[in-house]
Amino acid sequence: MKQMRTEGQLIVLSGPSGVGKSTVIAELLSEHNDMYFSVSFTTRQPRVGEADGVNYHFVDRKQFEAMIANNELLEYAEYVNHYYGTSLKVIQEKLAAGIDVLLDIEVQGAAKVREKCPDAVFIFIIPPSFEELSRRLHRRNSDGEDVIAGRLQKARTEYHEIPHYDYLVVNDKVSTAAAEITSILTAERCRTKHRLHWVDDV
Amino acid sequence: MKQMRTEGQLIVLSGPSGVGKSTVIAELLSEHNDMYFSVSFTTRQPRVGEADGVNYHFVDRKQFEAMIANNELLEYAEYVNHYYGTSLKVIQEKLAAGIDVLLDIEVQGAAKVREKCPDAVFIFIIPPSFEELSRRLHRRNSDGEDVIAGRLQKARTEYHEIPHYDYLVVNDKVSTAAAEITSILTAERCRTKHRLHWVDDV
Repeated sequence: MKQMRTEGQLIVLSGPSGVGKSTVIAELLSEHNDMYFSVSFTTRQPRVGEADGVNYHFVDRKQFEAMIANNELLEYAEYVNHYYGTSLKVIQEKLAAGIDVLLDIEVQGAAKVREKCPDAVFIFIIPPSFEELSRRLHRRNSDGEDVIAGRLQKARTEYHEIPHYDYLVVNDKVSTAAAEITSILTAERCRTKHRLHWVDDV
Repeated sequence: MKQMRTEGQLIVLSGPSGVGKSTVIAELLSEHNDMYFSVSFTTRQPRVGEADGVNYHFVDRKQFEAMIANNELLEYAEYVNHYYGTSLKVIQEKLAAGIDVLLDIEVQGAAKVREKCPDAVFIFIIPPSFEELSRRLHRRNSDGEDVIAGRLQKARTEYHEIPHYDYLVVNDKVSTAAAEITSILTAERCRTKHRLHWVDDV
């Protein structure tokens, strides 16, 4: 068998605030040592407990706008007066080295990645129900009623983008959601287009 | 979560004679009690050890031609003067009941299923190398040199159809090949188009 190295897979995860994406991602990263989680750049202030380079790369507006000007971003979006974006260079290096790269981005950014990287895999994570999303946001207890209402309203908008995603995973149990995503990644690696170089010329 | 029953998945497996498809299928069936393996109809004589209804439904030419005339076949092909075909009715019943159906058919038949059931999943199984295929056919020790040469020639033709398949699985180790196919089936169930009825109207 021709065991040429295959490029890594770019995986885009989206889902409403409160669905438990970070928990699912932590579970995935703990199971796949070879997976790289792309840390986004943002101009917003770090929240309590957030560390630079871990949750986000925190930069100021001038730095961010320089990255835009230099074409260094795969995608970026402005949301509530703050920039959020993904560095292109790091991702390209990882993918070329055969490493799978996980992106956690909202639907606006995902749409841009879809244009630039049609081979990426797009996964949307939903809660078991919209009521459960509301319960989770309340249980989190970190936001006021108006902020929660805003998040739910944003979730409604995001839901309309679901048909553009390749896969839909329900985060009822974190382990099940992570296992489904793992199966999706295995299946994607089995796609004929990624393995044609394995076929002997006969 | 709206737990409406989802239709079963139609899975088409193809691969050259000698690749070990039956072993992979046996492994899959032993792991998935809810999977139905579609037994084909044929007009050829049973070989030693083959049982009617297990390996094939053995029918005569007149019966087979009646099935063709009555539109009872999903696909059929003639190969070395014998008919081989797949019953449409049984498959439709199983799929409607939410049961996954596995078809083991050669590339000609698969092409016909692709036309009629674009939602089916098409998986091609290859050996680690073409030389290994030849070794396996010799090791099987059931065929003469000319028959083996014929099978290898047919395999060459089949290889040209690989790009039409969704997935490519290498049968190096049976358990790995079966595990990859299991992941493919899980991933296919996660496809957004199969789960849109789970999304709340918000």
